[in-house]
Amino acid sequence: MPALQHPLALALSSKKDLMLDTGPRPFTVSVEGNVGSGKSTFLKHFKGLEGVNVIEEPLEKWCNVDGHNLLDKLYKDPKRWSFLFQSYIQLTRLQIHLDQTPCRVKIIERSLPNNRYCFVENALDSGAISAAEHTVLAEYYSLMERRLDIGVDLIVYLRTTPEVVFERMRQRGRAEEAAVPLDYLRRVHRSHERWLTGARPAHWPPVLCIDADQELKELLALYDKNKERITGGKV
Amino acid sequence: MPALQHPLALALSSKKDLMLDTGPRPFTVSVEGNVGSGKSTFLKHFKGLEGVNVIEEPLEKWCNVDGHNLLDKLYKDPKRWSFLFQSYIQLTRLQIHLDQTPCRVKIIERSLPNNRYCFVENALDSGAISAAEHTVLAEYYSLMERRLDIGVDLIVYLRTTPEVVFERMRQRGRAEEAAVPLDYLRRVHRSHERWLTGARPAHWPPVLCIDADQELKELLALYDKNKERITGGKV
Repeated sequence: MPALQHPLALALSSKKDLMLDTGPRPFTVSVEGNVGSGKSTFLKHFKGLEGVNVIEEPLEKWCNVDGHNLLDKLYKDPKRWSFLFQSYIQLTRLQIHLDQTPCRVKIIERSLPNNRYCFVENALDSGAISAAEHTVLAEYYSLMERRLDIGVDLIVYLRTTPEVVFERMRQRGRAEEAAVPLDYLRRVHRSHERWLTGARPAHWPPVLCIDADQELKELLALYDKNKERITGGKV
Repeated sequence: MPALQHPLALALSSKKDLMLDTGPRPFTVSVEGNVGSGKSTFLKHFKGLEGVNVIEEPLEKWCNVDGHNLLDKLYKDPKRWSFLFQSYIQLTRLQIHLDQTPCRVKIIERSLPNNRYCFVENALDSGAISAAEHTVLAEYYSLMERRLDIGVDLIVYLRTTPEVVFERMRQRGRAEEAAVPLDYLRRVHRSHERWLTGARPAHWPPVLCIDADQELKELLALYDKNKERITGGKV
């Protein structure tokens, strides 16, 4: 019996065609940067443009997995819960990459590669996850990258100085940011620098690096100036 | 600029085509059953047939994740390590489902759905994983099932009575099986019964149920009698 004549093989082959027939994904941009680097302001600036779908970090999901607050567990006992937390972040970011949109442009707050190359590495460095936990997360990522379309067309890197964002956060006095220590910001900064600056593999997406230490007014002008590049010439 | 003219979009579109162009997967059979139900004997019986690729459980991987023995961690402290263990089992089983083979038939020892519907459920029931950990595993499974071709064409269920396999294991006296309590076998049995017998969703693969309490001689005769069905008429 030839391979495709078997009724089950036929059924599965149509299922497969269905999976593949999702069409080209939109021009996908991820905005990356430290806590307090201005990602929300950036997203707000592009939100509402026709043809642009802006997707924020799914914080509410991380705080409510079937009634369980993973973020809370993480804060209380990082060594115990970081692997679960990183697994779930990886899954929810993957969902965002794969979610379809009728829009031509998709701008996402942070990305799956950001999680892999910054936060998972930091968790290992700080001892929050073990080497075995790191390997499992890295192998999942590698399989997803190979098998699913998690591609990004442009990374917008809001590059800041840790001391500047620390001072910025101190001044705006948001309750949820009050506990972020300067040392943590420095670690997050270093991991972004390692990931987004200097020599990078040829198949990684291009980076538009923006000096986000600047004042809001200057930044908004820069976003407008770079609008065509940021939206892939599609709006 | 139309969607596919962007050089990056073009590059990614070829990558996508490449992913999709993997051809139909082979006729895929999973052999399921309790510890001691005779899965290895079944696999050995079909191994070596032309066009058949037999894949055993990747036990050696589970015992050596970058030098770490996850199985050992699991035995020592199930509540602490079950989630990591189940995550890795899920990943390695997924890899086996997706691995390409030039063979027309692929027979695998247990499957990703088996892990999802038996072992992950058992881990929750016994308190080895928390509700939040269960949700994360289940959501990963659901995404994989939706996005990747993990289809199975036939499940061969080696159905046994827990007391029979317990006695069989006691008699053959393998060191690694000496510690398996009857209660555990009963739990594994119940979960297989729930998953493979009675009413099942229409899109789940058919089950060839074999009474594996029988003597080896009878079983081998049954396997031969069912050879065409088991190999999808392809050998």
